[in-house]
Amino acid sequence: MINWNNLDTLRSFSKLKALKDRVNLPEAMAGEAGAARVAKYSVPIACGLSYNYAAKAVDDEILDLLGELAAEAQLTEKYAALYNGEMINTGEKRLVLHQLTRGQLGEPVIADGVDKRAFYAAEQKKAAAFAEKVHAGEITNAAGEKFTTVVQIGIGGSDLGPRAMYLALENWARQNGCFKLEARFISNVDPDDAAYVLKTIDLPHALFVLVSKSGTTLETLTNESFVKDALRNKGLDPAKHMVAVTSETSPLAKSSDYLAAFFMDDYIGGRYSSTSCVGGVVLSLAFGPEVFDRFLKGAHAADLTAKETDLRRNPAMLDAMIGLYERNVLGYPVTAVLPYSQALSRFPAHLQQLDMESNGKHVNRFGEPVSYPTGPVIFGEPGTNGQHSFYQLLHQGTDVVPMQFVGFRENQAGMDVVIQGSTSQQKLCANVAAQIMAFACGKQDANPNKSFDGGRPSSIIIGKQLTPEALGALLAHFENKVMFQGFCWNLNSFDQEGVQLGKLLAKRVLAHDTDGALRAYSDLLAI
Amino acid sequence: MINWNNLDTLRSFSKLKALKDRVNLPEAMAGEAGAARVAKYSVPIACGLSYNYAAKAVDDEILDLLGELAAEAQLTEKYAALYNGEMINTGEKRLVLHQLTRGQLGEPVIADGVDKRAFYAAEQKKAAAFAEKVHAGEITNAAGEKFTTVVQIGIGGSDLGPRAMYLALENWARQNGCFKLEARFISNVDPDDAAYVLKTIDLPHALFVLVSKSGTTLETLTNESFVKDALRNKGLDPAKHMVAVTSETSPLAKSSDYLAAFFMDDYIGGRYSSTSCVGGVVLSLAFGPEVFDRFLKGAHAADLTAKETDLRRNPAMLDAMIGLYERNVLGYPVTAVLPYSQALSRFPAHLQQLDMESNGKHVNRFGEPVSYPTGPVIFGEPGTNGQHSFYQLLHQGTDVVPMQFVGFRENQAGMDVVIQGSTSQQKLCANVAAQIMAFACGKQDANPNKSFDGGRPSSIIIGKQLTPEALGALLAHFENKVMFQGFCWNLNSFDQEGVQLGKLLAKRVLAHDTDGALRAYSDLLAI
Repeated sequence: MINWNNLDTLRSFSKLKALKDRVNLPEAMAGEAGAARVAKYSVPIACGLSYNYAAKAVDDEILDLLGELAAEAQLTEKYAALYNGEMINTGEKRLVLHQLTRGQLGEPVIADGVDKRAFYAAEQKKAAAFAEKVHAGEITNAAGEKFTTVVQIGIGGSDLGPRAMYLALENWARQNGCFKLEARFISNVDPDDAAYVLKTIDLPHALFVLVSKSGTTLETLTNESFVKDALRNKGLDPAKHMVAVTSETSPLAKSSDYLAAFFMDDYIGGRYSSTSCVGGVVLSLAFGPEVFDRFLKGAHAADLTAKETDLRRNPAMLDAMIGLYERNVLGYPVTAVLPYSQALSRFPAHLQQLDMESNGKHVNRFGEPVSYPTGPVIFGEPGTNGQHSFYQLLHQGTDVVPMQFVGFRENQAGMDVVIQGSTSQQKLCANVAAQIMAFACGKQDANPNKSFDGGRPSSIIIGKQLTPEALGALLAHFENKVMFQGFCWNLNSFDQEGVQLGKLLAKRVLAHDTDGALRAYSDLLAI
Repeated sequence: MINWNNLDTLRSFSKLKALKDRVNLPEAMAGEAGAARVAKYSVPIACGLSYNYAAKAVDDEILDLLGELAAEAQLTEKYAALYNGEMINTGEKRLVLHQLTRGQLGEPVIADGVDKRAFYAAEQKKAAAFAEKVHAGEITNAAGEKFTTVVQIGIGGSDLGPRAMYLALENWARQNGCFKLEARFISNVDPDDAAYVLKTIDLPHALFVLVSKSGTTLETLTNESFVKDALRNKGLDPAKHMVAVTSETSPLAKSSDYLAAFFMDDYIGGRYSSTSCVGGVVLSLAFGPEVFDRFLKGAHAADLTAKETDLRRNPAMLDAMIGLYERNVLGYPVTAVLPYSQALSRFPAHLQQLDMESNGKHVNRFGEPVSYPTGPVIFGEPGTNGQHSFYQLLHQGTDVVPMQFVGFRENQAGMDVVIQGSTSQQKLCANVAAQIMAFACGKQDANPNKSFDGGRPSSIIIGKQLTPEALGALLAHFENKVMFQGFCWNLNSFDQEGVQLGKLLAKRVLAHDTDGALRAYSDLLAI
């Protein structure tokens, strides 16, 4: 029997609040005791990744209580309910099945008369077969020439996740002989976005992937028209240059406007769709279906780890609970995500959507206002770049911002250079290690402007190399972290009603059906 | 006589604190009174840009008091002291002269025996002449072929600002016949960053701009070696493919390793260097010196507006004071920057550095801890993309995040499409207008999950088009805003001691001179 209770009604949460400021991080991380923490506070995720939380302001007693809270909040049971097909997205009355796009986690889930795991696997297979035909030159442009570029048209979850995943694997694919097509992305309704992409690609050899679950996303349909105009202006037939990724019930599903259509369904939220054919078509075209399959395997492996009932062996749950401690006990409103990997340059932007759209809510799953803070603001840039930018505030600002680092022992591209006795990769890794310690322990100086208080908590996910499997595991880790936090806060993490009002008002502006300040702004903007 | 006092010692600040939660934003912005606010609460910046703060939670009484506070904090006098050459960066004992890279604002500033405005102008001229020779084919590769790509090697201020400015004008330049060379950027010490750029450019026709003020930035020197190796491996002479941007006293200044050297000095902080030759060389090469000159003119025009003593006629000061009210009276720790312009996709990343590195500090300019919050966390992505991502939290999250929108009436690329009766540009503008009102006024609904409380404050900078002049004015607006806020908080906004400790520890890691937890992390990362 699952109980959906607010966080502040849970007994263990009251106990947890008494443990505020219990850990003195500079002391805890000093000397050999600090080294012992690094060894002890580490847990494998999957595919060679591990989550290390030594530099978080926790100790065994807090961890015990976080475990108690996780149990009281029934996180494992709720996760099982989700992957076994209960209606977790109550607001929209939908199942939540993105984990099933990469594997079966529990009982078969039958919905709309089909086995959902089989459905997602079949769509992945369709995408794979299509990609292989494109690569083999069996599907070509009208002149019989191979496609060289794939352009995804989509916004939000149809853009941020797939784009971040593409960038994450591009160097790896080039180095490992599986770089097939260059991918580009059009998302913004700003016409300059599409104009730029269209001006800088080889249009006759471009294949477009139109992604909209509903088939009604205004930005995406507008950009589709934009692209079709450009194709026609070059004497090209749009129907020979475009596929659709949509739901079976959408107007795009059976249109002869597309070379092919690939399906997801209402049980895959946009921000959780990178492992569905929303990511699958573009990534299979770019890197081959085998790479995409390896990516899914990594995600599935992390989903399995997330089933662990022992908090200390479940990195996604642990990450969630430590984040909750930081948000609801220590009171920190922001979390920085800092990957020491240029390939993950857009991963923070994806996490922004994943986390802030899922848990940036102030009513619980029953529509009742909650009286505690929920999802934090998420931001980040890759290191070492960020060190030369906003780290000043992270080190010496008046507010504490918890951090999540990501680092890999090996680079992707296999090129490096030795300067001053070390490789670039070693410098990169030395910097992330150094930052963790500088943030945790600080350093006193006679000049207060050069003093660092420390006590700024961070975790790090460490892997050998950012491979397709590791990327899949990394993605699923954060998805599951966000899911567990949503359960704790008693939110529906799978709807996004907060985006509706703006859409509605924009329509009124375009219909010139406005007055007051909205009319005044519209005039200023010459609409 | 200038007094450098902490914010909380100012009489008008005490009065201001009494005006917390005075404005009910949903009410203030409703009906025709809201329209009147939109008309009234607007001030020109320069070059057709205006700053509209109608949807900020201020009224005339608060504005009067903010004006009083600005006067008591002597913002105008401090700005004048800065551009007249007083030693404002006291920690590093340096003048602060970035405004002089674009024009003279006060008396001639003589330092190191030269007139500084003349020095910056001469360097700009040198860069212009060099760029023209490259464009004319007078400076070529060893084979006598024209360069087609310029690659900036730099990090932090040598990367974020110039990169953001390049992206901001690329479409505009293509449309207006002044796109000369494609620009690329290498910044991260992650070897995959340089590897990717080198794999995807036409190396024999690439010209590299090495940017390091000190000539000792580890990331940049490492990437220089990386690039030189790649050039030599192709049988190319690095000295024929590289220029340096540095200070006259740096080891790079007189090296025969470079085709030419261009100079800034210690009075230009990295994050303020886009209008020096740090931005000037790459932008003049990419778009021609005339475009760069127009960009400088826009920045200078905004610098002039920032001299206004009447707060209501000084948009940078007004933006600063409203931000201060939000940070120190209303208690908001984060600000979102949301440009409705794909060309400004990396502008928020530049502002992150500009703002967070300048004012993310907890000791005042005398090294004494301050007891009030200083610089906020800054993040943002272009709209409408963000609407499909993190806006959920901005609309319905438990915390209020003040916002700064930017919008333009016209696009840059001159391509558009009419769908459902409106152009993409109109849709873009309709969305930003709609968002401002949705955030300000919200909307009640019988379903609490579909209710919006409103009361989420925002401003918008509106322009006709993102031209070089408008971009310059936009950049200078934010630089001056950050400067004024730093004055109010009594900070030295022009040093960055917070980045030093991490560098120091990273060196120790690379020298294997570590123990305890730092050693343990180093081992995990296989350094």
